[in-house]
Amino acid sequence: MVRPRIVIVGAGFGGLSAAHALGGADADVTVIDRRNYHLFQPLLYQVATAGLSPAQIASPIRAILRRAANVRVVLGKVSGVNRERRVVRLDDRSEGREIPYDQLVLATGSRHAYFGHDEWESVAPGLKKIDDATSIRRRILTAFEQAEASDSAEARRRLLSFVVIGAGPTGVEMAGSIAELAHVALRHDFRTIDPRDARIVLVEAGARVLPAFPPALSDAAHKALERLHVEVRLGTPVTHCDDGGVTIGSEYVPAETIVWAAGVAASAAGHWLGVEKDRIGRVPVGPDLTVPGHPEIFVIGDTASVAGVDGQPLPGLAPVAKQQGAYVARVLRARLAGKPAPPPFRYRDFGTMATIGRRSAVADFGWLRLDGTLAWLMWGLVHVSFLIGFRNRAIVMLDWIWSYVTFQSGARLITGSEPD
Amino acid sequence: MVRPRIVIVGAGFGGLSAAHALGGADADVTVIDRRNYHLFQPLLYQVATAGLSPAQIASPIRAILRRAANVRVVLGKVSGVNRERRVVRLDDRSEGREIPYDQLVLATGSRHAYFGHDEWESVAPGLKKIDDATSIRRRILTAFEQAEASDSAEARRRLLSFVVIGAGPTGVEMAGSIAELAHVALRHDFRTIDPRDARIVLVEAGARVLPAFPPALSDAAHKALERLHVEVRLGTPVTHCDDGGVTIGSEYVPAETIVWAAGVAASAAGHWLGVEKDRIGRVPVGPDLTVPGHPEIFVIGDTASVAGVDGQPLPGLAPVAKQQGAYVARVLRARLAGKPAPPPFRYRDFGTMATIGRRSAVADFGWLRLDGTLAWLMWGLVHVSFLIGFRNRAIVMLDWIWSYVTFQSGARLITGSEPD
Repeated sequence: MVRPRIVIVGAGFGGLSAAHALGGADADVTVIDRRNYHLFQPLLYQVATAGLSPAQIASPIRAILRRAANVRVVLGKVSGVNRERRVVRLDDRSEGREIPYDQLVLATGSRHAYFGHDEWESVAPGLKKIDDATSIRRRILTAFEQAEASDSAEARRRLLSFVVIGAGPTGVEMAGSIAELAHVALRHDFRTIDPRDARIVLVEAGARVLPAFPPALSDAAHKALERLHVEVRLGTPVTHCDDGGVTIGSEYVPAETIVWAAGVAASAAGHWLGVEKDRIGRVPVGPDLTVPGHPEIFVIGDTASVAGVDGQPLPGLAPVAKQQGAYVARVLRARLAGKPAPPPFRYRDFGTMATIGRRSAVADFGWLRLDGTLAWLMWGLVHVSFLIGFRNRAIVMLDWIWSYVTFQSGARLITGSEPD
Repeated sequence: MVRPRIVIVGAGFGGLSAAHALGGADADVTVIDRRNYHLFQPLLYQVATAGLSPAQIASPIRAILRRAANVRVVLGKVSGVNRERRVVRLDDRSEGREIPYDQLVLATGSRHAYFGHDEWESVAPGLKKIDDATSIRRRILTAFEQAEASDSAEARRRLLSFVVIGAGPTGVEMAGSIAELAHVALRHDFRTIDPRDARIVLVEAGARVLPAFPPALSDAAHKALERLHVEVRLGTPVTHCDDGGVTIGSEYVPAETIVWAAGVAASAAGHWLGVEKDRIGRVPVGPDLTVPGHPEIFVIGDTASVAGVDGQPLPGLAPVAKQQGAYVARVLRARLAGKPAPPPFRYRDFGTMATIGRRSAVADFGWLRLDGTLAWLMWGLVHVSFLIGFRNRAIVMLDWIWSYVTFQSGARLITGSEPD
């Protein structure tokens, strides 16, 4: 009898955990991703702020899955799904090659959303890909260089103004680490400017930073940001962005560097399937994470809309995607074995964390809420332990310890646009 | 009395060692570089072959020189020198800004030379900048990916053919580490192709590999390359390159990836000065490394032509540049102190090394010639000890040990041209 073909699109946290759990299963598994590496996105902001190198938070998908002989990795960008013929279509780069499936898992993540202002993307880049991070790193470091070279006080002021839009975990982490770069790592590097004159503005349309956290922790994070000289603007939406600066409410803030951390939208999976999507493009799936009417198609991670215990859709977090990937693998293994399906998916929330800077983070475990040094240490341990590959863990640890002890930061390279 | 202004152009091995040695001197020192980091070029080939990350072999110039309060760093690209007005001109990116000097040190290095075939550069990139290395890395890794995806045996053969042109240290190191990538690191990663089918061709117009080394060590290196399944072609010049492959002598070798390691030419410094240059564009300088008729202008490193004890011009090696930088600093300090000039520059050759692969290298100390494991260990120690910054040393060490033990390689990321 012919082995069933399972196709997983996307090697993020969801797709990878599904592929992992299907290693050795009696099926041919194909993992398709448009990149050759799995990216540990929770630490991407540290690449953008020159703390870590890309390779420290990314591992080749092939290497991760090398031991799973029944798992094949395909580097390619998916352009569509044909539900009738049960094939995944790759884009022109792969000559529109088609990959047939019996069971399909879509774990294609999310991208930035500019709420109908896509023209802002070029001036206010978001942080999803490694190339986003290295280009933001280039912008930030180049701004200091240009300020050092400039003899106009006004130009310097603008060059040394950094606006981060959105005060979720990514926004808070970006603002905090830009502030530390300016006040700590770069402190002695310049002769004309004082990097500590840098103005870092964190803009949030909502009423508090880290809206997903309990108010007490939002307050703690807010205070920690102010200790780092971050200017926090709450309840004021950004109404305009251009390459000169940002309009916050009615005030125009001239700024060379603008980072977008305000919103995400689901990937195109829902569009491929031609099914109804929710407000941010996510595909509503059933309790077994399959698309209604299509028991052979699973959607997981940031692209899926799954109701949590409180009826609200689960947040787009790594642990959610990982647990969903593992769950889908269980369902598929049960099907392969002809066993009854496992009980509906249920997300187990082990808590969420966000870091602000040196010895400063917040952690919410429901039964326990922490901020400060202890939360920061736990944040570090948890993130390092989730990194894939001993090498990366060891090196990131070493880097962090070194940075902490020396107040230096690790990867301050302006690359990608070198003059010849 | 006004402090003399010393301007150093280029923060490679030569310029940096001069700047270092001038720290604390009674002069205002300005270091100009078009990049914000010093690059440890001897290990750049390991970035190109996915062994190391860029940040591991590059450190921010400002951070290196932060403690020298009299040293200023300017990020900018020099477009010319005006000897009459004694100013260095920056290019348009810096609005043609001019930087005046009393003493000038030109340490602007070298670039690839295609011997009148500049059209080859796009298909056969060389290895000088970080961006060169990451794009070669992308080409190599993408070739394996495309081969895995291809169903034409002929196309696979071409995709898995790698030609390295030039068998000096860089060419030998590139060929050796591409071979190890294919035979060791990637061995278990693919399902359709066997990376060990990769064909690595090292082409040398001369009679032996590593021409600058004693014949016995060339033989040792040659044998080591063949053990790594590298096809060595001696005495056959490359007569043509296109994006389909390379013509070696009269044979056309279809190859997806071509790396140029055949020749270098000096930077434009000689052109800026409008002085006579040698065959590869180097500026002949006097025994004190100044330009004849211009005691205030020093030229050092790959851009200078200085006769060695044997009358031959010194090779373009890091140690030569470093010793010249330190020498120039001594001359300048003597001038500042009104003391007599030190004796003419003399290069002290502590030996040269080249590595081929795992436990395989050659080392020539004149009085001692080594190959094999011992030479390899010495090569590793010497290169790590010359890396700037403890962090980089520790991390590169860790990476190497890890790679050696696990047969894995560290930074296999295809970046820079991600589909959105």
